[in-house]
Amino acid sequence: MFKGRDIISIRDFSRKEIDYLLRVAKKVEETPEDRLKVLQGKIMGSLFFEPSTRTRLSFEVAMKKLGGEVVGFSEPALTSIKKGETLADTIRVVENYVDVIVLRHPLEGSARMAADYASIPIINAGSGAEEHPTQAFLDLYTIYKEKGRIDGLNIGILGDLRYGRTVHSLTYALSLYNDITLYLISPEQLKMRREVLENIRDKLKFKEMLNVEKALPELDVLYVTRIQKERFPDLSEYERVKGTYRITLSTLKKAKKDLILMHPLPRVDEVDVEVDKTSHAVYFKQVKYGLITRMALLGLVLGVF
Amino acid sequence: MFKGRDIISIRDFSRKEIDYLLRVAKKVEETPEDRLKVLQGKIMGSLFFEPSTRTRLSFEVAMKKLGGEVVGFSEPALTSIKKGETLADTIRVVENYVDVIVLRHPLEGSARMAADYASIPIINAGSGAEEHPTQAFLDLYTIYKEKGRIDGLNIGILGDLRYGRTVHSLTYALSLYNDITLYLISPEQLKMRREVLENIRDKLKFKEMLNVEKALPELDVLYVTRIQKERFPDLSEYERVKGTYRITLSTLKKAKKDLILMHPLPRVDEVDVEVDKTSHAVYFKQVKYGLITRMALLGLVLGVF
Amino acid sequence: MFKGRDIISIRDFSRKEIDYLLRVAKKVEETPEDRLKVLQGKIMGSLFFEPSTRTRLSFEVAMKKLGGEVVGFSEPALTSIKKGETLADTIRVVENYVDVIVLRHPLEGSARMAADYASIPIINAGSGAEEHPTQAFLDLYTIYKEKGRIDGLNIGILGDLRYGRTVHSLTYALSLYNDITLYLISPEQLKMRREVLENIRDKLKFKEMLNVEKALPELDVLYVTRIQKERFPDLSEYERVKGTYRITLSTLKKAKKDLILMHPLPRVDEVDVEVDKTSHAVYFKQVKYGLITRMALLGLVLGVF
Repeated sequence: MFKGRDIISIRDFSRKEIDYLLRVAKKVEETPEDRLKVLQGKIMGSLFFEPSTRTRLSFEVAMKKLGGEVVGFSEPALTSIKKGETLADTIRVVENYVDVIVLRHPLEGSARMAADYASIPIINAGSGAEEHPTQAFLDLYTIYKEKGRIDGLNIGILGDLRYGRTVHSLTYALSLYNDITLYLISPEQLKMRREVLENIRDKLKFKEMLNVEKALPELDVLYVTRIQKERFPDLSEYERVKGTYRITLSTLKKAKKDLILMHPLPRVDEVDVEVDKTSHAVYFKQVKYGLITRMALLGLVLGVF
Repeated sequence: MFKGRDIISIRDFSRKEIDYLLRVAKKVEETPEDRLKVLQGKIMGSLFFEPSTRTRLSFEVAMKKLGGEVVGFSEPALTSIKKGETLADTIRVVENYVDVIVLRHPLEGSARMAADYASIPIINAGSGAEEHPTQAFLDLYTIYKEKGRIDGLNIGILGDLRYGRTVHSLTYALSLYNDITLYLISPEQLKMRREVLENIRDKLKFKEMLNVEKALPELDVLYVTRIQKERFPDLSEYERVKGTYRITLSTLKKAKKDLILMHPLPRVDEVDVEVDKTSHAVYFKQVKYGLITRMALLGLVLGVF
Repeated sequence: MFKGRDIISIRDFSRKEIDYLLRVAKKVEETPEDRLKVLQGKIMGSLFFEPSTRTRLSFEVAMKKLGGEVVGFSEPALTSIKKGETLADTIRVVENYVDVIVLRHPLEGSARMAADYASIPIINAGSGAEEHPTQAFLDLYTIYKEKGRIDGLNIGILGDLRYGRTVHSLTYALSLYNDITLYLISPEQLKMRREVLENIRDKLKFKEMLNVEKALPELDVLYVTRIQKERFPDLSEYERVKGTYRITLSTLKKAKKDLILMHPLPRVDEVDVEVDKTSHAVYFKQVKYGLITRMALLGLVLGVF
């Protein structure tokens, strides 16, 4: 189902396929010692045309925990791109060295294009503002593990819904599940894009709102993202709204006892550190789940799971 | 024959030695599974004082495919050179950590100097404009594999023959073989250096020419290199000649059916992408052959082949 | 004694603990082949928020020689710090990936703070101008191996005693041993800090002096450090003194035959290269001892030694 497959966009996957991935991840998590050498002799190319330490380390550790090896680079300055080589040529060179390529690239469409040229699997680790499919997989795995299910939940997504690729991938993924209500909470300027809403309109219920208070008592999951100052043409407007999108102990008073609070990280101050100690906070667990999801994915595309 | 030896210049090797290397490479290529752990416990130092992603990845993968490990750096900004340390001291530090050093350095003579100080083998991965011996080995291996022999071939080298270190190393290497005719095709400003011609004059036939058309029907191998704009004091002169040194489907119409087209990569536009699909194009295969040649070399200098 | 422990400051260790570490290091050095796989399946996070090639390679090789794996970064430009993440959050992310973290950070107190947040061992690979505990361990191991003991020696420390973290850590460490006389040799502006002297006053004898000549015949060990031009407000003052702190063959004429000359490296010109060939010079051996000490330390904190 996954062997030899490119992982470019969450939209390439059916619910059945995603559920299968989640089950494999669960097995990997439960029996890590069985996995130590399954990818021995395999090499992953880790091609980061823009820096992303967290994602890069997650993939590299995933590969190594399965017994595989890693080569690559962590920022564009280190590549021969400077000499004018096309991405297509770079891919056709590197595919001679490795068994799978993990690609992070600033341009939309880059991962799809790489996959067109490569004869080995390409895993998209973020391409432009567009897609970050493995983040969506790990977000789903986090919900599945922490809530026991994905169907039927009330899920809030808060922050920058307009520019956040994480948020778009997650929204598409959730639209594959049943009976979900999505609470889309953002400032006016950062509302979810029309085309995403059109796409999910028939698949799940959603409500757009400007602040989190009213929705909070209903939520099973609250997914927080950062709001970047630079998105606001008028800085005073930013200063006016930013407090509203900051989660503190006081914000959480009205939350369900078993609400889980997620965040793709890095955070700046949109979740107060005091919240870290509450049972709501699962964002550091999310990191661990990310590692497991990527182990599952690497094992699957390389045909050992 | 190779154990413990430094690999600094192609000119340090006899035909007998090179042929031995090519035979070992062929064995490595034919039985990769036998090689998986021969360098287990060995560590390669990958010291790139200027970035060269392709060469670095090739060596690192070669080491890992033999079961060895790699440490190092990929550009000078990351080194303590900034603190004023000499290359000699850096080498004497790193030789305490590793079993073999792969060195890329912008200065001519640097690799030879490093070898003088080190008690472990140094492999030159490019020093200044001077030498790039492993590129020459892989070029020979490509010809040997694709044509079945090196002796007796008509070989064209096209592009910048004046500044290209790849081209100088290859020319010296070919002068060790019998009955080769070399077609040296370049603009007037970028003709092969006098001292190289003096050196090979008694060893092989060569013809210098300004364009490829006339020679093409004779060639068994055409080795294309990039012509850099910066080499021309007068840009209009560059604009005038550049088309002449670009290989397209139309250029190849007069070629032998089994002509092979080589390129050290990266290419910019000196070989049209349409050519990639023809059976002439072996430049991406060259990448694979480079990996194999470097596996053979690492195994040889570390004494396991 | 060391399992699961953070290695933050040399001052956290008793003489008994340090001696134990030195004995383990000796065993590692004598039976390297026994150690090849003890850390198989373990991963070290190598987080260098400022570049330090020597220290980074030393730790990475140490880990690999024990069969472990490494992930990380080698300079801050490559991290998500740029996105405003706190060190605490970075540590809480990375501890999900790895078994031990080696941290180099420009700020004093950073390693201690990281240890407060992490549930896995943190090894300080240099924090600010403050501490570099593994350098002190390797310096002690060098003395122990080369002189057979540490107690009872006359030890000179020459150069920048005011700003050198290496020198501070070593001084504290030596104060745990018996019957040592310390000769603190530096220009007036770079004398050892008052607070360090207060701390060691009751534990060992020390003499402060402006030049090395008078002390030299007494010394068993001379530890040389670099004097940086930038430390002198008045450059002419620097030019006047610098010759005094340079060790040459001629300086060493009055030395004991078995004096050992140490240096944390990199050196610029404070030890003349002619000295390298004498039996006094042990600074490149120090590099090897550093590797062994770090192997011992990694094995100890990860509980396999």
